[in-house]
Amino acid sequence: MPESGHQPDPTFSEAERDAVYRCIHSRRDVRGQFLPDSIDDAVLARILAAAHHAPSVGFMQPWDFIVVRSPEVKKNVHAAFAKAHAEAAQMFEGDRRDTYQNLKLEGILDSPVNICVTCDRSRTGPVVIGRTHLPEMDLFSAVCAVQNLWLAARAENVGVGWVSIVHRDELRDALGIPAHIHPVAYLCLGRVSHFFERPELESAGWLPRMKLAEVTWFDRWQNRQGDEPLLGEL
Amino acid sequence: MPESGHQPDPTFSEAERDAVYRCIHSRRDVRGQFLPDSIDDAVLARILAAAHHAPSVGFMQPWDFIVVRSPEVKKNVHAAFAKAHAEAAQMFEGDRRDTYQNLKLEGILDSPVNICVTCDRSRTGPVVIGRTHLPEMDLFSAVCAVQNLWLAARAENVGVGWVSIVHRDELRDALGIPAHIHPVAYLCLGRVSHFFERPELESAGWLPRMKLAEVTWFDRWQNRQGDEPLLGEL
Repeated sequence: MPESGHQPDPTFSEAERDAVYRCIHSRRDVRGQFLPDSIDDAVLARILAAAHHAPSVGFMQPWDFIVVRSPEVKKNVHAAFAKAHAEAAQMFEGDRRDTYQNLKLEGILDSPVNICVTCDRSRTGPVVIGRTHLPEMDLFSAVCAVQNLWLAARAENVGVGWVSIVHRDELRDALGIPAHIHPVAYLCLGRVSHFFERPELESAGWLPRMKLAEVTWFDRWQNRQGDEPLLGEL
Repeated sequence: MPESGHQPDPTFSEAERDAVYRCIHSRRDVRGQFLPDSIDDAVLARILAAAHHAPSVGFMQPWDFIVVRSPEVKKNVHAAFAKAHAEAAQMFEGDRRDTYQNLKLEGILDSPVNICVTCDRSRTGPVVIGRTHLPEMDLFSAVCAVQNLWLAARAENVGVGWVSIVHRDELRDALGIPAHIHPVAYLCLGRVSHFFERPELESAGWLPRMKLAEVTWFDRWQNRQGDEPLLGEL
C-alpha cells in the first residue's frame, strides 16, 4: 500500500469489467442442480472473505457465518422448510398452487455446504454511524454480504440457492441462534451439473422479466419525459 | 441459447474469477473523491442493468430506479441529509462527536448522478413465492440490486456512496415517492480522483476490521472445535 492510502492502480480493464458483468448476469438461484462433490476449504474461505468485505453501515460488520455440513442439522432445517412450504402452498389458488407445488425450491440436503448469514444488531453498541435514522441499515449490510458471497461463488463455479420459506424462529431453533441475532439468509452451496440460462421462475412462466426502462425514472418518482438519452441505452 | 436452457459455457477462468474478487475487494463507499465529470449514458445503462439482474424473491423485481441529476432535487435531498446529520451528531459523545462531525459522509452535490433504489412491496400481488414467511425478503431483494449496482460501478471505474443519514419521509418528499413505496438506498455516483485502499472508517480508527475467523461458526451458533481445516484458510 502506498503511504497515501490510495489504491495504486485503480483502473479496471475492459476484460476485468466484462468478467464482473458475466458474473452478475450468469448468477442463478440454484435449487435442483447440486452435485454431492465437496467444496475445497480454500474456495470456501475465498467466498466467505468476499462476504466479509461487503459494505457495512458504520463499518459495524454485523454478520456471522454459520457453515453447516452436519447431516443432522441440515435435516432439522429441511423439516422447518417442509412445514413452511406446505403452509405456503395453501396461499396459492388453482393452477397457481399446482405450479407452486411442482417447483423445486431448495437444495438443503442435496448441497454439501449450507451457510447461514446472520446480523447482530447490537454489535459495536447502540449508536451506529449511518443507522441513526434508518434502523434497517444493519440488516441491509448483511444482505450486501449475501450478494457478495453469491457472486464470489458464481466466479468459483459454485452454485448458491437462498432458502426463505421458513419461520425465522424455527431456523433459529435448528441452528441454536439466540433471539437477539437476526438470521438474514440461509444459503445452499455446491458444485452444479449446470447453470440455467434464465431464472427458473421466468422459464416456468411464473413471471416475466420486466423491462428496465419501465422501472427507470428521472429526478422524481414516475417522472419521464421520454426524450432522455439514457432510455435509448436501456 | 441452447434448447436445453443451460448456460453453454458456464466455467469461469481464474482470470475472470480474480477480476470478480478484485472488484469485491476494491469497492469503496465514496464520499469525498467525486469529480464533476459526467457518466456516459452507455455506462450508466450497464450499471442499471446489473442492478436489474439481481436476485429477487419470487422473481418479483420489486425495484425502481430514480436517476437524479437535477441540482434542485439534489439540493432538497442534501438539506434532508444535513438536518439528520445534525441530529445524529448529538447522539455521539465527547471525542467521538468531534470525530463524527469531521467525517465526510456524503457526496450528494459533488457527484454528477444520484440514484434512489426503491422497493414496491405490492408488486405482483400480495402472495409472493419465498416471501410468505419472511416479509422482509422483498426489501432484501432491492438491497441485492444495490450491491450489484455498486460492484458494476466499481468495474466501470465509477465510485458509489450510500447516503443513509436521512429521515425516510423527507427523502420521499424530496423525490415525490408515495407512502407505499419504500426507498431502500440513496446512492451518489461519479468518476473519482482516487479510490482508498481501506474503508475510511477503518483508516480513521473508528472501528477495526474484524477477523473473519472470529465470525465463522460450524453447524450451530458459536460452535467451533478449533480443529476445523477451514479455519486455517481464513
